[in-house]
Formats: sequence, structure tokens, C-alpha cells
Amino acid sequence: MELTAKQLAEIVKGEVVGDEGAKITNYAKIEEAHEGSLTFLANPKYTHYIYTTKASVVLVNKKFEPEKTISATLIKVEDPYATLAMLLNMVSAMQPQKKGIESPVYVSEGVEVPDDIYLGAFAYIGQNVKIGKNVKIYPQCYIGDNVTIGDNVLLYSGVKVYQGCEIKNNCIIHSGVVIGSDGFGFAPKDGSYEKIAQIGRVIIEEDVEIGANTTVDRATMGATVVKKGVKLDNLIQVAHNVEIGEHTVIAAQTGIAGSVKIGKHNMIGGQVGFAGHITIGDNNQIGAQSGIHANPGDGKVIIGSPAVDARMFMKQSAYLKRLGDMYNSIREIEKELNNLKK
Amino acid sequence: MELTAKQLAEIVKGEVVGDEGAKITNYAKIEEAHEGSLTFLANPKYTHYIYTTKASVVLVNKKFEPEKTISATLIKVEDPYATLAMLLNMVSAMQPQKKGIESPVYVSEGVEVPDDIYLGAFAYIGQNVKIGKNVKIYPQCYIGDNVTIGDNVLLYSGVKVYQGCEIKNNCIIHSGVVIGSDGFGFAPKDGSYEKIAQIGRVIIEEDVEIGANTTVDRATMGATVVKKGVKLDNLIQVAHNVEIGEHTVIAAQTGIAGSVKIGKHNMIGGQVGFAGHITIGDNNQIGAQSGIHANPGDGKVIIGSPAVDARMFMKQSAYLKRLGDMYNSIREIEKELNNLKK
Amino acid sequence: MELTAKQLAEIVKGEVVGDEGAKITNYAKIEEAHEGSLTFLANPKYTHYIYTTKASVVLVNKKFEPEKTISATLIKVEDPYATLAMLLNMVSAMQPQKKGIESPVYVSEGVEVPDDIYLGAFAYIGQNVKIGKNVKIYPQCYIGDNVTIGDNVLLYSGVKVYQGCEIKNNCIIHSGVVIGSDGFGFAPKDGSYEKIAQIGRVIIEEDVEIGANTTVDRATMGATVVKKGVKLDNLIQVAHNVEIGEHTVIAAQTGIAGSVKIGKHNMIGGQVGFAGHITIGDNNQIGAQSGIHANPGDGKVIIGSPAVDARMFMKQSAYLKRLGDMYNSIREIEKELNNLKK
Repeated sequence: MELTAKQLAEIVKGEVVGDEGAKITNYAKIEEAHEGSLTFLANPKYTHYIYTTKASVVLVNKKFEPEKTISATLIKVEDPYATLAMLLNMVSAMQPQKKGIESPVYVSEGVEVPDDIYLGAFAYIGQNVKIGKNVKIYPQCYIGDNVTIGDNVLLYSGVKVYQGCEIKNNCIIHSGVVIGSDGFGFAPKDGSYEKIAQIGRVIIEEDVEIGANTTVDRATMGATVVKKGVKLDNLIQVAHNVEIGEHTVIAAQTGIAGSVKIGKHNMIGGQVGFAGHITIGDNNQIGAQSGIHANPGDGKVIIGSPAVDARMFMKQSAYLKRLGDMYNSIREIEKELNNLKK
Repeated sequence: MELTAKQLAEIVKGEVVGDEGAKITNYAKIEEAHEGSLTFLANPKYTHYIYTTKASVVLVNKKFEPEKTISATLIKVEDPYATLAMLLNMVSAMQPQKKGIESPVYVSEGVEVPDDIYLGAFAYIGQNVKIGKNVKIYPQCYIGDNVTIGDNVLLYSGVKVYQGCEIKNNCIIHSGVVIGSDGFGFAPKDGSYEKIAQIGRVIIEEDVEIGANTTVDRATMGATVVKKGVKLDNLIQVAHNVEIGEHTVIAAQTGIAGSVKIGKHNMIGGQVGFAGHITIGDNNQIGAQSGIHANPGDGKVIIGSPAVDARMFMKQSAYLKRLGDMYNSIREIEKELNNLKK
Repeated sequence: MELTAKQLAEIVKGEVVGDEGAKITNYAKIEEAHEGSLTFLANPKYTHYIYTTKASVVLVNKKFEPEKTISATLIKVEDPYATLAMLLNMVSAMQPQKKGIESPVYVSEGVEVPDDIYLGAFAYIGQNVKIGKNVKIYPQCYIGDNVTIGDNVLLYSGVKVYQGCEIKNNCIIHSGVVIGSDGFGFAPKDGSYEKIAQIGRVIIEEDVEIGANTTVDRATMGATVVKKGVKLDNLIQVAHNVEIGEHTVIAAQTGIAGSVKIGKHNMIGGQVGFAGHITIGDNNQIGAQSGIHANPGDGKVIIGSPAVDARMFMKQSAYLKRLGDMYNSIREIEKELNNLKK
């Protein structure tokens, strides 16, 4: 790739401030950029970098006015982050796409493998599996019996899908993800535990992305459901019979216990834990490391374990640092009171 | 499957209240059930659903007396949850069982592969591996050299067992589990770290189930031991030289540091952390997200980080919400005291 | 292996106290040792075991003076732990080393496979992969296109390395590790999320060890970097554009959010969470389960969520237990004050 600032400005419908001939040969973050880098400024926290960056070209908001001289050429656009995302997606789309069936693979008799598939070596396709159009199954994936895979699904190397589960259109599943393992269901009996068979399944709806090594257990009965547009980060635990609502995003290492129902458009931080059998509303923001034991309602901002309103959590954290002072004040007051009483 | 309420009542030795001819074609949770569903009511929290459920038949406790009319047919039994578990296990047992050796597999020379095995494609069997009767090794599993696998063991796709480890009878290990990776042992030396070879192994005793992507490290010397009847959920970390006692159950994402000894019959929540080199008694209940730094004793209910008695934790959480009020009261008192002194 | 105490003392340049002819046939921890065991005493917490251990020989510090009789033979050395580590490494080095190319494997056309490689069955080598000397790639590993692997690298079974990543000399990567999965990057758009292509990569520098099922995401642009000598335990999450400084060690299940820069020589406990876009200094000790939202500086000891100085955390934990008493004292004081005012 080699573009000039002028050429790029035409693509992104932006205005050049500086050298129109500045050459772009790579993409980088503003603090790591060097000669030839295209970078962007969106987060105000990073503004100071624009005066020292070695980038050749920086995408900035069209309202941005520098306070000092800047050596880089600027391209002013409506939304620098969205513009950059669009460019990254263009770069990514230009990379060669995998196609064809490598060897050896294991495909059960009678399974119809579409012509446009990528099926990597050592991939395993069980009995009665249904596969949509334009699917990519990377090496060493396991697709159990009776699994259904929609169109445009991308399974990276080593994804494991147990029997009977369903992955709908446009999903991206990263390496090491396990879909459909047994829910953690045991009945106590005479001092030990008996396994309860988990005869349900998992449904991953359209446009879901699941990060590396995340696990989604099958339902005891019925289905564990990850709804349309949900984005799950790495190493997340989704227990049996959980439902995650449309367009909810969850950061890494969060754990969701059995039968929890999470609503739509929630933003959930990393390492959060949800207690079993609770319902969560819509549009909530839940801070990292929170412990959630009850429905916060809708549109709330909560954090802590057990979680409380975020402002209360800030106050608690501040007062916690004064606990020793408070303790000493009380003792002091008691002494003075005794003196007064005398 | 198609049964009538009457037929089912005979199987489970229950009493029909309602339409004996009601047809059962599927299993579902009470809040998700529809026509043809068999469901159950065990948790009182779900009682209100019985008046609105669309299930055709509901298993209830023989003492259950409805407060309103119920459209579903009831079958009264001693223990609805145990009855359902038994039925689910029947359904599960009727599913076709995998048998035979798929191709290709890698089996080291001299290993005796029993006739009744299921060995999925792309499975790897190292040198001198011993395999019991009625074992199922799903595709893409890795069994390192000198591993011993007992009877009736089930390894789902992609389980990795390092050399020298042992898995005893009736264990179920889910996809992505790693058994026998090196313990995290390093000795500081001149500003960097030197690896300490981990020459021990892992022993998984009888009747253990291990959830997806859980990791169990080998011992530095001796063995990391998961004892009889233990149930581990997904994404749990078991460090080197840990011992987990009989019939202890541990929920997802809990981490157990090196050389911890956990007793029998403990129930441990999700995302709990155990500090290294401690011993835990028997029959304790440890709440989710706890941090455990010392032996709670036996039969305790603890929670928090650092963990305290559960009742104390509840009180602390309640008082934390009043910290600001307490702070203000102290300041107010000090003012009044000053006035009084004047 | 069979050695006498005298022979061993010569190897480790130690002094025998007791039976020079005591025979050593195995290694064990002091509390689990039995006849024939060699063990060691380094942690003072374990000193009491030396009077009851069944070990035949114990490595002790040369300054150690027993307070009671000890049945085991002692070998006094400068540093018992380092001596033992050296012996374990000797034992480990004597184990047979894997060599050669098993069958089947998938190696892309044009890739040069060095003669001294171990390439396990069902391993996958993508296009244009570069492999150094003395590399071991265990069964079922996936090495994506354009990956570079240095000398003496050891990848255990089932490691997945996405395209374009780099693993430098002497690294050890355990089973289930995923390197180079997409960073968690999405831009909100019209009530749903659009994926931002992650066109960066991962660089794992020299002498790094990564524990089982840990995930390291590729950068959005540029590189996620794990620097020289870093040791990562199991089930850790390293997000996009993170940098982990030289010789920092991190315990299991810790999560590091996007763009965090961690300095050198830090010791980080298990289940810690780092908020995104922060910088951490050097030589800090961070306690388990901490939540880190800001740079502690250098050489600090911090713990808690949000993390504070470790001594303050201890005090807070102690005062928390007296919160109820404090509350009651305040109410009592208010009553007395009212009485006084009257």
C-alpha cells in the first residue's frame, strides 16, 4: 500500500491541512507511529501526542484546532475513529481469503459441503451437519453431529462445537471456543453427586463474535441463547440456560451463572460475575469485577461486589480510605464526652 | 418420544391430577415450556410459573396444593427434581453412542487399543499409553506418553493430557481441558527467572467431571490430585501440587494457587481465589468471588475478599452503604461537642 | 536413578550430616516424602515437617541447626531451593526428547522444515512460516501464515498461532494457548456494533513462558508485545496493543485490558484486572484479585479493588470488621449528647 495524503483525503472525503504529498505506507497508534504512518486522534486523552507524533498523516476531527505547531499532515474528517475503522476494514478485506478443502479432513457421509467453503486440514464434520454459504472452518475445528452453521460463518482454528448446536449467519468464533459443553448440573445423593444429563443445546444468533477460549454450555433442557449482535470477549463463561440479549457486549473473563437472562444493549466489563437465576434489564453499564446478585433495572451504571450505583461506589471507596480516621474520631469523642459528663 | 401422562406416571410411580391422556413430546423449563412439554417444579421461586405455564405436564411434589386453577396436567411425585433428572438421563442414554476407530488417528506402536473404544479422527495416542474398557476419546484429543486412562472415561474433542498423568474410572473431561501442563515455578536469578522443571504429574481419581477449558497443572514433584467425585466447572485453574478432596464441587473461573489442600464436600462458588500453601477443611460453603487466605475450618459459610463469615459480610455490605452518613454524623457530633464545651 | 547421600553431596558441593550411605530413589515435597525421597527445606513455614518427614535425605541451608533429632540425613548447601531446582532440571533433561516428523502433518508448500524439528501429528504449518533451530511443535498445533518461530521454541499440543505473529527464541507455550486472536474492537453504529478489523500482530520476545489456555490478542494496529523473560501463568487474558515489560511475572486468570503498558520486573498476583489505557511502572508487587485503575509508580506493594497500598488495605480490612461497632457507637454518642444538651 502506498497512498498520498491527497489521495486518502479523496477516499475519506476529508480536508488536507499540510503537505498533500505526504506518503502513507502503514497504520499505527499515535504514540507508536513513525515515518509513513497514518494514525488518528479520537480520544481527547491522547491529544498531547499529536504535537510529538512521528506519523506522516493524522486523521482528526474537523473541529480540531492545534494549539502548537504539528509536523504531521492532518486530514480533517467528520469522525476520525469511524474513518480509520473503515480504512482498516478495507486493508483487511484486501488480504487473501482462504478457499477450498485441505487434506486430510474428516467429513461424515452424506454431509453436503458447499463449493465455496474453506475447510482447513484436520477439521472434523460430524453426521448430518448443515453448512451455509461462504463458510470458513479453519484447521482442527470440531463440528459435532447435527450442528447447523449459517452463511458467512468464520470458525478459527480449534473451535469445538458439540452435537446439536446452531450457529447462525455472519458469526465469528475464535480459537479455543467451546460451544455446547455440558452445563454444570449435579444432584446430591448419599454424600456424592449424580450427573444430570444436559439434553438441551446452544443457539448463537446472527452477527455474534466470540473471543478466544470462551465457553458456552448447552442447556439442561431447551437452549442457551446468545442473541443477535452480541459481542463476547475472551475467556468468558456462559453457563447452561443463560440468555444474552441483542447487542450486549461483554469484556473478558466475565462469568454468567446458570439460567441468567441478560437484556439488550448492556455494556459489561471484564471479570464480572452474575449469580444464577437472575434477570438483567436493558442498556445498563456494569463495571469491571462487579458481582451482580439482582436486576439493576434499565439504563443503570453500577459497579462493585455486591454492585451498587457507580457514584455510591466512588463515595464508598473514598470513605474507606478514611475509615481509620473515623474510628479514631469516635474514640476521641467518647473520651471528651466522658470528660464533659464528669 | 411420545408418552401420555398416564404412561409417564407409571414409569415414575406418580399420581396424575388432570388429563391422563395429555401427550408429552419434549422437555422444557417451566417458564419456556409449550404444548407437549414435560416440565417440573422444584424451586419455590418458580412456583408462580405453574399458573401460566404452557407445558402439558408438570412434575410436582406430592404435597403441592395449587392456589388457583392450573391448565397443565400434574404428576405428583416424591422428588420432582430427582424424577426429572432420572428422565433426562434416560433420554440421554437412548442417544446413539459413538464406537469404533475413525481415520486418520495416530496411535503409537505397541499401545493396546481395546475393541470397545471410540477413537475419533485426529486423536493422538502417545507411547506406552494404557486405555481401559469402554473409553471414548473424541476427535483431536492428545494423550501424551505414559498416560493411564481408566474404564468408562469420556474425553470430549480437544482434551490435552500431558505425559505421565492418570485419569481413573468414569471420568468425564470436556473440550479444551488441559491436564498436566507445567506448574508455574520459577526461581529469580540475576534479575530474570529460571524455570524449575516440573517433574511431577496429575492424578484425576474416579467419578470426576471437569468443565471446558479448565487447566490442571502437574506437580513440581509428586502429584496434583483431584479426588474421587470432584466436579469442576469451566475455566478453573488448578495449580501445581494442589489437592482437591472427595466430592468437592467448584463453580467456573475459580483459581487455586500452588500447594493448596482443599478438604471434602466443600461447595465453592465461581471466581473464587485461593492463596497458595493453605489448607481448607471439609463441608464449607464459599461464596462467589471470595478471596481465601486461611483455613475457615469445617462447615463454615464464608464470602468476601478477604473472606469472612457470610453474616458478617452481609452486615458489612449494609454498613458500607451508610459510610457517608456515618462520616457526616461524626463531623456533626464534633461540632455539637465543641458548642457544648463552650 | 539411584544415588547415595554422599554422591549427591559431591554433585551439589554440600556437607552430609547423618548417614552418608542413605539411598535416594525419588523426589518429593517434605510433607509427602517417603523412604528413598530426596526433599528440601527452604520456606520456614515448613520447618516443623523436618522432624517428622519420612524422606531419606533433606537439602537444608548450611546455617540450619535442628532443635530436635531428625531421622533423615541432611545435606547442607548454600541455597536448598536453587540446588533442588538444579537437580530437577537435570532429571528433566535426562528424559527422552521428541524428534522427527510424525504423520500426517500439514506443511504448506515452500516452508523449510529444519532437520532437527519435532513436528507432531496433525500439526498445521501455514504459508511462508519461518521456523528456527531445535523447535518442538507438538501434535495438533496450528501455525498460521507468515508466522515466525525462533530457535529452541517449544509449543505443546494444541497451541494456536494466528497469521503474522512472531515467537522469538527459547519460548515455551503450553497447550490451548491462543496467540493473535482479534482484539475486542467494535464501533457502535445505529444501535448495533461494527467490527473494527484488527490488522496488527503479536510479538512474543525471547525466554517467555505462557501457561495453558492463556489468550494474547493481536493489535488493532502495530503489535501486542510480551517482552523478554516474561512468565505468564494459565488462563490469562492479554488484550490488543498491551505491552508487558521484561521479566514481569503474572499469576493465573489475570486480565489486562486494551493498550495497557506494564513495566519491568513486576510481580502480579492471580485474578487481577487492569483497566484499559493505563501505564504501570517497574518493580511493583500487585496482590491477587486487585483492580488496577492507575499507575502505582515504581516499587509499590498494592492490593484491593480499587487497589491501595497494601498496609492501608490491611487496615481497611480490619476496620471493616468493626463497622457495626462504629455505627452503634455513633448512635450511642448521639443519644448521650442529646441527654447532655437537656
